[in-house]
Formats: sequence, C-alpha cells, structure tokens
Amino acid sequence: MNKEMLKLGSNRSIIRELFEFSKLKKAELGDDKVYDFSLGNPSVPPAKEVNESIKYIIDNKSDTYNHGYTSAQGDNNVREAIANDLNKRYNTSYKKENIYMTCGAAASLCITFRALVESKNDEILAIAPYFTEYKVFVEGAGATFNVVPADLNTFNINFTELEKTVSKNTKAIIVNSPNNPSGVVYTKENLIKLASFLNEKQKEYNHPIYIICDEPYREIVFEGNTVSHIPSLYDNTIVCYSYSKSLSLPGERIGYILVPDKCFESKELYLACLGAGRAYGYVCAPSLFQHVIEACASLTSNMNEYKKNRDLIYNGLTKIGYECVQPQGAFYLFMKALEDDAYNFMEKAKKFNIIVVPSDNFGVKGYVRLAYCVSTETIINSMKAFEKLYKEYNK
Amino acid sequence: MNKEMLKLGSNRSIIRELFEFSKLKKAELGDDKVYDFSLGNPSVPPAKEVNESIKYIIDNKSDTYNHGYTSAQGDNNVREAIANDLNKRYNTSYKKENIYMTCGAAASLCITFRALVESKNDEILAIAPYFTEYKVFVEGAGATFNVVPADLNTFNINFTELEKTVSKNTKAIIVNSPNNPSGVVYTKENLIKLASFLNEKQKEYNHPIYIICDEPYREIVFEGNTVSHIPSLYDNTIVCYSYSKSLSLPGERIGYILVPDKCFESKELYLACLGAGRAYGYVCAPSLFQHVIEACASLTSNMNEYKKNRDLIYNGLTKIGYECVQPQGAFYLFMKALEDDAYNFMEKAKKFNIIVVPSDNFGVKGYVRLAYCVSTETIINSMKAFEKLYKEYNK
Repeated sequence: MNKEMLKLGSNRSIIRELFEFSKLKKAELGDDKVYDFSLGNPSVPPAKEVNESIKYIIDNKSDTYNHGYTSAQGDNNVREAIANDLNKRYNTSYKKENIYMTCGAAASLCITFRALVESKNDEILAIAPYFTEYKVFVEGAGATFNVVPADLNTFNINFTELEKTVSKNTKAIIVNSPNNPSGVVYTKENLIKLASFLNEKQKEYNHPIYIICDEPYREIVFEGNTVSHIPSLYDNTIVCYSYSKSLSLPGERIGYILVPDKCFESKELYLACLGAGRAYGYVCAPSLFQHVIEACASLTSNMNEYKKNRDLIYNGLTKIGYECVQPQGAFYLFMKALEDDAYNFMEKAKKFNIIVVPSDNFGVKGYVRLAYCVSTETIINSMKAFEKLYKEYNK
Repeated sequence: MNKEMLKLGSNRSIIRELFEFSKLKKAELGDDKVYDFSLGNPSVPPAKEVNESIKYIIDNKSDTYNHGYTSAQGDNNVREAIANDLNKRYNTSYKKENIYMTCGAAASLCITFRALVESKNDEILAIAPYFTEYKVFVEGAGATFNVVPADLNTFNINFTELEKTVSKNTKAIIVNSPNNPSGVVYTKENLIKLASFLNEKQKEYNHPIYIICDEPYREIVFEGNTVSHIPSLYDNTIVCYSYSKSLSLPGERIGYILVPDKCFESKELYLACLGAGRAYGYVCAPSLFQHVIEACASLTSNMNEYKKNRDLIYNGLTKIGYECVQPQGAFYLFMKALEDDAYNFMEKAKKFNIIVVPSDNFGVKGYVRLAYCVSTETIINSMKAFEKLYKEYNK
C-alpha cells in the first residue's frame, strides 16, 4: 500500500485525536467536567430554517428531486441562489456559472489545488498561523507546501517574510480570514497591499498567482471588523466556501467553489475544477442539503452567541494572566503557552481536563488554539481549571 | 492550470452529457416524449423509512448530533449497524473497525485506489464491460488502468484474456457484479475460479493482488441469481459500497469501504484508506445520512419495480428484433447496436428521442447501455420509437 497514505491515516490530525480523547474523558468524568476546546464543531444550532427546509422539501418535493443526482456542478437553482446572495452583499455580478457546489471547504480546497497544480515544482503558500490540514491537501494534490512565517505581533500578513517566500514557482497563496487558528481578520489595507504585491509578482514571473480564499468563517465577525471580499480587490481570486460554520452544518459537507469571471482563463479554470472533482470521486454535493442551501443561502446561525463566548473567554483568560490577541472573528482564540513547548503545555492542561491544540501544527511555536464554539457554561466552568493551570507555572 | 484536469472537466462523462441533453429535450418536448435511458438515477423511491428517519432524527436528536462532524471513519453506531447487517446476511464477523463511511461508491473507489497505489507502474484492472469512470478514478490515483477484454458471449469474466492481462504490476482488479453496464451477475463458479487464479498469481509475484468489489447493485438481483460475498471466497478483498442504488439515494453521497480482517495487513490498509480520504478532502461522510443509514441499513427500495421493468424492456426489445443478454441484476440492459459504430447508433436513436449510452466508454464496441431505472410508462411508450429505429436499419 501507499506509505504516505498510511502515515496520513496513522498520524491522524492532532485535532481529531484530541477530539477522540475528549470523548473518552467525557464518558469517564461526565460532559461538564471536561473543558474541550479542541474542535471547531459549532455549538450554536443552525438557523431554524434549516431543519424547517429539510422537512418542507421532504414533504413537498419528489424523492428523485430530493435525493437524486444533481449535475456535477450542482443544482442550477441553488447555484443561482448563492450567486444572487453574493451579489447583494458584495455588489458583484456572479452567475450560477461561477459556482461549483462541493462537499465542504476541504473538498473545495483539495479540488482547487488539484485543478491548478501541474507538477511538484508548483508551490502553494499558506500564511502562518494556518489551518493544519492545508499541508495535507496541498501535498495530496502533488504540489509543494510552503509557509510564510507569522507576524507574531498582529497575526496579519508578514510582508517581509512574504517577499522572501514568493518565487517563480508560486502558484497560489491561501488566505484564511477570519483566521483559523488566530481569530484575526486581515485588514483591508493588508489585503490591498497583498493584491498589489502579487500583481507585481505576476508581471515579474509572467504567470498568474492565485489567491485561494478559504472563508468558512466569513460570516463570523465581531463589532468594528469587516471581512473584505477579496475577488473585488484582486482578479485572480478563487473562493472556497463552506456552510459548516456559518450555518452550523459541519457534518453535512456542503459548500462551493467560486471562480469569478475576472480570473485568468476563468472558464477553463472552472472546468479544471470540475475535472479535479471528478478525478477525486466527488460526483455531486449532497443533494438534499443543496436544496436546503437554496432556501437558506442568505441565513446564518445566531452569531451573537460566539461574540458572547469570545468576550467571556478572552476577558477571563487575560484576567488570569494569559496572553492572547483578541479574536475579531471565527471562534478561535490563540493563546501564548506558559512554556516554550506547546505540546508540554497541552499535556499539562489535559491534567486539568482542559483540551487545547498546540500551535506547532499551525506553523507557529509556543501557542495553543482554543475553539470557543462550546457552551457558555463550559467557558465559565473552565476558568477555575485555567487558574489552577496558571498557578502550576507561577508557584 | 492542470491540463489533464481541464480535459476531464471539458470532456465530461458522456453519461452526464446525455443527461444534460435529455433535460433540454424534455423541456422542449415534454417529459413523456423523451425516452431517456442514460442515467442510473433510481426511479423507485427510497424505502419509506428513509424520509421517516430523517424527520425522526431532526425532531428527536440534537443539532450537533444530526449535523455535526462525526469521526473521520464515521459514527460508531452506524458502522456497528452496518457490520451487524452484513454479518446476518453473509455469516461473517465484521466489526465497526472494518467499516469506513464514505461519500458514496465513487469516493470509496477513489480512496481505495489512492490508498493502494505507490507508483505509476502499479496497474489496476477492470473487466470489460466496465463502468466508464473507473479509468478516471484509477488514473486520478496515479496508477495505470488496464482492461481485461470482454467475454462477448456471457459478459462474465474472460479468463483467457485475464491471464494475458495480469502481470507482476497488477495491484488490484475491480469486480463489479451485478455489472454496470451489462446487468450480468458473475457466477459463483467464475468467482471461485478468479480467486484461485489470483491466489496463484499472488504466490508467483510474491505480493498481494486485491479484488476491489464495486457493489452498489448488490441488492438489485432477480430470481434465481445470487450475488456471492466475495470476501468469503478470497482473502484480499476490499468492498466499496454505496446506498445510491439499493436505497435510491444517489445524490446523498453515502456509502462505505469494508476492509475485512483477512486482508493482508488489514489494519494498516484501513488506516491508509483513512489517510487517502484525508488527502482528498473527505472530512467525514454526510452526518444526517449516516444516522439515516443506522436506522435503514437492512432495508432496500422496492426491487420488484426493477424486475417488472427488466421484463418489459427485455421482452419488448427482443420481440422487435434487438439482441441483448438478459439482465440478471442492477438496472441496466446491454444491447447490440444495429451498426458497428455505437456512436452513430446513439445519434440515430436520439432522432427518435431515445437516449442510450454507446458502449465504447465501457470497453466494448458496438453496444449501447440502457438504464431502465425509469418509469414503467417510459418503457412502454418507448417501444414504438424503438420499433421505428429498428425499421430505419431494416428498410
């Protein structure tokens, strides 16, 4: 068998491993005694229209429509609904032909990478801190994964490092804002600077360099911050979206790829995405949930819950003495570990039944990620444990 | 972008293209004037328990359970339910650890291929006639696709050709019975002969050669015929299953990979499958439908409908004068075209609003595939058109 795949299957994502650990621990101690901040599994229920739509569709439409194959690119009506929703919000003029329905953001990314990559020399960059699976997806598509080191002060884009990292082999750069794991929203100034830098580099190397926006957290953003629509700032932008977080449907695997007309050879690029989806066995996105999205494209879960959690956890932790950047979006907080080795810190936290993810997997050392998409009680109850953990280091 | 992916996206599967053509034609002429036999989209509704389960789950379980992430390998309860169901039917002793929930049979196959393939030298074989997308999936996983030419008399396994095709590079052979496109069920004698042949070859080459069973049609089988459980006949068997056809849920993308303990290094192979799924971006199988399958694992749609259709179409066509092997399972009929060039025949059929798929894509020349998972009326109404088509060739 393939040794690389065996390795990927054996050294599972640490997040998933912690999730399994937490399930065991909860079974042992009870749900309320384990403070599991490991997984980005939304705690806020979907908009009520989601379950209502499911029932409505089942009761009123035919089984073939509900559960049958759609076109590979997705049902026409859902793609139109999504294009219309984007157009309203971003003053754009997308059509259904720009949208390819997928099985979630991971599928969107893998398919986009596969569509773009021609050889192992092609490099796809991520900006640290970055979502740990990017490396797996990029290498899975046959490209080389490369990292732009973090700006540890702001966790925005580090342009000094970016200039050093971009080369003639750069095929694309992944932009993930609101960011997993830092919760930071890249400023519009930063994104404009990125666009102008990449435009220069495209000229210099005489080939397109794509921005691939991984934006599942687009709608989870707190007061005063706005998420820029990057295709309006930079032509060669492909958007990979998922309803996992905004509609709290992570298990349903439903999202899309947006290939705007302004992309270089956009029609061909769209077709190459369809081809890559075909080669990976993605026949179509789950049909019932395509129809649900048609009804719910403009809705989100109640995002105020995350804001409340953000305030509770950020204020609570900083009051104890922990250091962290205030999250502006998503539902993650990136906290400085109390020792250099984030793995050791994670292990110590486990002793207090606190489950956090060490930052090494996100391309930064010495931090941990807390996914605060948990019940408010979990956050409140966890504070005593965080205090004890802090005291361990400050005896 | 990647030229190979662009090609795959541009030269779409002919089946999907005919499906799109048929949609346009139906919009023009009305549904009842187009006899579309192109797509294996089940016409029989799902067992009523499917929609009932959806509603029950939504009304009685939590949103996080219903729509949240499951473990990558799938929810424990559904995997247990599937293992139990298999054990009852095949007198086996599978456990949940043998089952990996996937987004349907295409995903199962792509993931299995990727898990096995180490280099371009590895060959994966299909037995003609074969499902046209195998080539795409095998090559997508980086292996060489090779075909065992058909036994045109029975459409069972052609052993003379098999011996010529198997080599030291053979990594696996795909077995698809009941067969798409022929509707033939491989006899137990043939499968035992295959097992003994492969056991010899494994010894000769000193490495495992896997049978990969693609069995979405396992439950669609007509009187007198039985589908053998191949893992009971041959140790190195991996089963790729989907509920698309048996439960009429092709759009929902729900199925599994079964890696029996008897497989060589089965635990590692299972992990390599998980790794391949991860590299392809399959985070988990759609969660709501995992729970639905837990409730419906032992059920099927009403298969008598396909039997009725099989009799109508087989008897009708042979009465007119067409030649075809009587289908024993699945919902396809493989008919000899009335000229050598199946594409020309397809085009002529289109003029009578009959939509059939030319056999060249299935690895055999001069036939067409008819998917008779359509309404009984479509079959009855189509007969006049088939008569006219026949007369065109026999003036």
